[in-house]
Amino acid sequence: MPMRVRLDIAYDGMAFHGWAKQPGVRTVQGTLETAITRIIGEDVQLVVAGRTDAGVHATGQVAHLDLTEAHLERMRGSRKSVDISALANRVNGIVGRDADVVVRTSAEAPQGFDARFSPLWRRYEYRIADDRTPTNPLRRHDTTRVLGALDIDAMDALGSTLVGLHDFAAFCKPRPEATTIRTLLSFTWRRDDSGFVIADIAADAFCHSMVRALVGASVAVGLGKLDVDRVLDLRNAGQRTSEFKVLAARGLTLVEVAYPPNEELAARAEQTRARRSEVDTSAVR
Amino acid sequence: MPMRVRLDIAYDGMAFHGWAKQPGVRTVQGTLETAITRIIGEDVQLVVAGRTDAGVHATGQVAHLDLTEAHLERMRGSRKSVDISALANRVNGIVGRDADVVVRTSAEAPQGFDARFSPLWRRYEYRIADDRTPTNPLRRHDTTRVLGALDIDAMDALGSTLVGLHDFAAFCKPRPEATTIRTLLSFTWRRDDSGFVIADIAADAFCHSMVRALVGASVAVGLGKLDVDRVLDLRNAGQRTSEFKVLAARGLTLVEVAYPPNEELAARAEQTRARRSEVDTSAVR
Repeated sequence: MPMRVRLDIAYDGMAFHGWAKQPGVRTVQGTLETAITRIIGEDVQLVVAGRTDAGVHATGQVAHLDLTEAHLERMRGSRKSVDISALANRVNGIVGRDADVVVRTSAEAPQGFDARFSPLWRRYEYRIADDRTPTNPLRRHDTTRVLGALDIDAMDALGSTLVGLHDFAAFCKPRPEATTIRTLLSFTWRRDDSGFVIADIAADAFCHSMVRALVGASVAVGLGKLDVDRVLDLRNAGQRTSEFKVLAARGLTLVEVAYPPNEELAARAEQTRARRSEVDTSAVR
Repeated sequence: MPMRVRLDIAYDGMAFHGWAKQPGVRTVQGTLETAITRIIGEDVQLVVAGRTDAGVHATGQVAHLDLTEAHLERMRGSRKSVDISALANRVNGIVGRDADVVVRTSAEAPQGFDARFSPLWRRYEYRIADDRTPTNPLRRHDTTRVLGALDIDAMDALGSTLVGLHDFAAFCKPRPEATTIRTLLSFTWRRDDSGFVIADIAADAFCHSMVRALVGASVAVGLGKLDVDRVLDLRNAGQRTSEFKVLAARGLTLVEVAYPPNEELAARAEQTRARRSEVDTSAVR
């Protein structure tokens, strides 16, 4: 009987050319698939919840893979049964202890689970150091530097204004036939105890570059270069703009992919697939 | 009129052979002194609050340097006056933006200030990931991995027991004629929101390897290998022991050096110097 396996994954994106496998460059997907192939003796394909760009980090990434009876047989070896929870450790052993990517857990996925189509939402954090942030070289790998002092309240006000079901084309790198209509579930800004400026942003799914463009618009507001109404006008115009930047990948971390209760997994996947059936689903990230 | 300058410094210790200058290797002191020498045109000597070992990090390091009238003249150049607060930025410009060491601020030190002898206490954090910590590759540079699940309550209980004025010889790498009597001001253990196990430990000063040995004893207690009474016996015996380890440098960060109010700086330095006058003061860290 084949088995779908859920992997929970964390990585420092610095030295990866993003999640998606590409010939000739180091990617998270490529690194993990190579390791898993060594274990099960055959090529596998990981299906991921959030296809992160080059330099983007993750602490809450989720992927699935389907193992056939033959794969399971091979993993079992001379043992009585297969312990799927040990797969994470075997992968980590191949990738290397203390590596920049780690499989935190591996488990048999519940019925109807689809890493890509079942999620209720994806949640990202974006970390900024502005002129008021005491510089911490230990966090330079996951922090974007912004010159000037940010007005956090103004940025946070923009965040709440943008929440809801909208066409986010103004924030999306266009992909042919990909929808840019998304539900932004929450978007807050705060300054933490160490002085870092942190965005917490969740949506059912994000189109390409959407988080970093929303962060760019927020920074323009935080520096007083744009006001909230102007950002709304730009959003409503639905065109990409040069009035704000797409901020660097290094500040961005995928921190959570949330799934519904087990009994709703299949229905949720069905629903997501249906909604995206007319469009190129490669834009889901 | 010469001027004493206070520098507040942060670094990722990973690629440094510690604070103290040594020929042929990259150190924090060497890197900063080279940069400052380029600015003032003459060799300088930084005096530091906490001489960290190779691989140890800092977010709250403090050092001072003395500038002569000639140095100040040279810094002034064609400007009307010297802006000492701009020194930090000039040093960072030479060391490199986005470097693993940064001078956060530079300022004229108050009368009587001595980075090394005026402190009331030094405070360190030690970060551990045990079997219950979700692995986060983004923090692998400042986290030590421990196999097993730690009993935080037992470790924290040990911490409070060790606090006070004691001879910490059992935890110190011996140095000829260096005192090992220290006042441990606080020593707590907690598990943070991300699952990391964190020690917060402060003392008037630490002898060599003291924090990492105290952490090692705590981990032995947290794993059930030693009990609190045995650690007290070992401390009272005053001999180094193999019953616990000196843990790795990478988990350790100097987070704060605390100074008294300005009017007490000179007296405090006087007092510290007097107390250490009979012993090799190179052990202060």
